Amino acid sequence: MGDDSSKRFSSNNHAGAVAELVENLGRLPGIGRKSAERLAFHLLRVSESEALALADSIRRVRKDVRYCSACFNLAETDLCAICSDPSRDTTRICVVEQPRDLMSLEQSSAYKGLYHVLLGRIAPLDGIGPDQLTIDALVDRIRAGGFNEVIMATNPTVEGDGTSLYISNLLSEFSVQMTRLARGITAGSVLEYANREMIADALTGRQKL
Amino acid sequence: MGDDSSKRFSSNNHAGAVAELVENLGRLPGIGRKSAERLAFHLLRVSESEALALADSIRRVRKDVRYCSACFNLAETDLCAICSDPSRDTTRICVVEQPRDLMSLEQSSAYKGLYHVLLGRIAPLDGIGPDQLTIDALVDRIRAGGFNEVIMATNPTVEGDGTSLYISNLLSEFSVQMTRLARGITAGSVLEYANREMIADALTGRQKL
Repeated sequence: MGDDSSKRFSSNNHAGAVAELVENLGRLPGIGRKSAERLAFHLLRVSESEALALADSIRRVRKDVRYCSACFNLAETDLCAICSDPSRDTTRICVVEQPRDLMSLEQSSAYKGLYHVLLGRIAPLDGIGPDQLTIDALVDRIRAGGFNEVIMATNPTVEGDGTSLYISNLLSEFSVQMTRLARGITAGSVLEYANREMIADALTGRQKL
Repeated sequence: MGDDSSKRFSSNNHAGAVAELVENLGRLPGIGRKSAERLAFHLLRVSESEALALADSIRRVRKDVRYCSACFNLAETDLCAICSDPSRDTTRICVVEQPRDLMSLEQSSAYKGLYHVLLGRIAPLDGIGPDQLTIDALVDRIRAGGFNEVIMATNPTVEGDGTSLYISNLLSEFSVQMTRLARGITAGSVLEYANREMIADALTGRQKL
């Protein structure tokens, strides 16, 4: 279709820049070819400032965002917004797998302590061992003292639970209380659709009325 | 949640750049809050070059892409890749609503002629009249001569059909054959799920075996 120069740019005779944008959008998770085309045409249609704002924020996030030197949350300065916030309760530390887990916990507004982000979970099948996580830094923080409680908030999966168990064994030498997030039925759910694990967790952890 | 300065950046204590990226991604069609977060974390995780390639292609598409001066397809030079391709059949012109429709037709590889992109359809309810489309330019192209056939390929909707009818009336003064895309049942479909319009189209336009 067409001469060599147009083929070099795109297999569908579209402007090379558009084809390139479609291709780059299509690399995003969950964005297929059709969605990528739709997004590309959207970015062509909206105001120039809106399109460039997206481009700039991608650039900025890669230039400015690093890990907090204390808790490994995302940060734009040496310490993240939480670690540098004087109003947080510095006697509790909540251990999560990823910054996005921290984001979920923060959105609940139910926790005012500090965090520690592992940047993953122990996953032998994926070749991820304890050394590739920020567990050493966590042990150093606990050893330095000042914390009364470590709340394990890894994901309720086999690997998350395993990571949690590994860490609580490691921290058992320190005089710090280890807890984990409550398991049970979820608010707003119906018992009819709860699976066996959920029901078992809810029964085991039943609370006084 | 945090002091004023952190609140100014983000309601969830996340780095301001991340919150900004999530917000800008969330403006894309079909991308909700959760998807935007997922995409933002993906862009933080991939190689810097992959993330910046996306930012650059958004920027490039807004800087370099314009409409072809002949057919209003997307182009990076005065004429688009199709209009400047000497191997195309210049006796046929296919009229489409949008550049993405042209893209679909090109992907079929079934058409080797030229195009004319209307950049919309006549839609009185949305306040879009013939003057806001590129119909004048189409009439000029046909008047200039050299075309034997005009293939109407607007969408098979009330507005698309109306636009098509309006244009064929306008072009009836020229000695050019007017055609439209065949309607019928779609390849790979099952009759059981075809609706009344599809069946009626398929019967009306039935072809000799």
